[in-house]
Amino acid sequence: MYTLGIDIGSTSSKCVVMADGSDVVSSAIIEKGAGTDGVDIVLEKALGDAGITMDDIKMTISTGYGRKSYNGDKDMSELSCHAKGGAYIFGEVATIIDIGGQDAKVLRLDKNGQLQNFVMNDKCAAGTGRFLEVMANVLHVDLNEFGEYDAQATERTPISSTCTVFAESEVISCLANNADVKNIIKGIHYSVASRVAGQAKRVGVVPPVVMTGGVSRNSGVVRALEEELDTSIAVSEDSQLAGAIGAAIYAYESYLKNK
Amino acid sequence: MYTLGIDIGSTSSKCVVMADGSDVVSSAIIEKGAGTDGVDIVLEKALGDAGITMDDIKMTISTGYGRKSYNGDKDMSELSCHAKGGAYIFGEVATIIDIGGQDAKVLRLDKNGQLQNFVMNDKCAAGTGRFLEVMANVLHVDLNEFGEYDAQATERTPISSTCTVFAESEVISCLANNADVKNIIKGIHYSVASRVAGQAKRVGVVPPVVMTGGVSRNSGVVRALEEELDTSIAVSEDSQLAGAIGAAIYAYESYLKNK
Ligand code: SF4
Repeated sequence: MYTLGIDIGSTSSKCVVMADGSDVVSSAIIEKGAGTDGVDIVLEKALGDAGITMDDIKMTISTGYGRKSYNGDKDMSELSCHAKGGAYIFGEVATIIDIGGQDAKVLRLDKNGQLQNFVMNDKCAAGTGRFLEVMANVLHVDLNEFGEYDAQATERTPISSTCTVFAESEVISCLANNADVKNIIKGIHYSVASRVAGQAKRVGVVPPVVMTGGVSRNSGVVRALEEELDTSIAVSEDSQLAGAIGAAIYAYESYLKNK
Repeated sequence: MYTLGIDIGSTSSKCVVMADGSDVVSSAIIEKGAGTDGVDIVLEKALGDAGITMDDIKMTISTGYGRKSYNGDKDMSELSCHAKGGAYIFGEVATIIDIGGQDAKVLRLDKNGQLQNFVMNDKCAAGTGRFLEVMANVLHVDLNEFGEYDAQATERTPISSTCTVFAESEVISCLANNADVKNIIKGIHYSVASRVAGQAKRVGVVPPVVMTGGVSRNSGVVRALEEELDTSIAVSEDSQLAGAIGAAIYAYESYLKNK
């Protein structure tokens, strides 16, 4: 029995086809978010890879920032879907740290992978992917290489301003003072980590801790967060799919309940 | 008897020569702040205009962000100096709203012009002159013309993000959607005003209300704040000198006390 989970974010769309709420049959991700044809593309790709059509899908749930724009059977909060999908991907999970392109959330889960509590920042660019983007721009370094640069740093150039705008000026001064770009990047990662760690401490950080969202691909931020929170943090290649997987599982459960 | 007040801000330096703690003899302002030769320039100019030398000065107090960088007789908190100078310039004052290049403060004064309470934002660029600078840059409009543009607006383009970084993206979208630059600027002024009004309400807004700091020269922000706070707000050409005047008065009082 197939269900579909669709996660329409602000900058990307993801789709997952699931069998019996327990196995991912196919998935697709595209860096095109709400208001684009991204959802159509991932839908077609995921169905094609599974070798099925929309008629084979018993239920579809959409989630994410643009969830209302897709006319599925139901839409659900990205927080619940994220919690559910995170528990599926990582197995046992008590805390999910999700840093996206323009927000950051920390989710606390109960034993059943249900959302218990959360804190969310979507008002301030500091501590989100946007902060890193601004810095990549001013440093002229590809954001995808930030993890690698961080790994090669010999020390950390401290960035004292939390605010993205003031930190940007600080980074410009550091460059003018010939600070090493690798060390500045390490400092930038600590800035993000300390901001998100502050958030995390408000919900309470209980292991096992996992990290999801686009920024989880940046090993420098992961390392800095592990230090700040004094705990190890698991990441997964599939973590970008957490919301879509959660939606597909909820679709399965919802279908069974209403049958 | 002459005293000197020097206010070294982050983006400008001001100097005031005062006679007997009651008359401004000369003053100078330059758009060069801490860490530059700005302080030397204003010092030389103010002394020159007064026709005196450093030997004629009985006491010097420095204030502002860069106050420690000047080796005067004493340095004092910019808050106290600002309160004192504000009361000197405006006469009766109960609330001072000071929006500078990278911070914003709201000061509540008692009947004697002494600081009673304050709130300060120097952590977030939103609601400060920096927010306006970022916007001037993205709009390619001289910040000095913002007040004029605002006066010619036919409506206000709402800016929903408070964060400077997110608001900047919003403004770029507005431009792409052919919104009128004058209306966007009016929206930007309301963004600053609503942020600062939130701060002001935390100390309580008691009239007479005055506005100081570099942003007080922007009539659009003043108008927006008057609307947000539902009160009239006095501004003065001299308000940029408030800190330096306060420092010079304190220098006079301090000299008398220690004599
Ligand atoms: S602190 Fe900086 S990044 Fe955060 S809301 Fe304020 S302006 Fe935006």
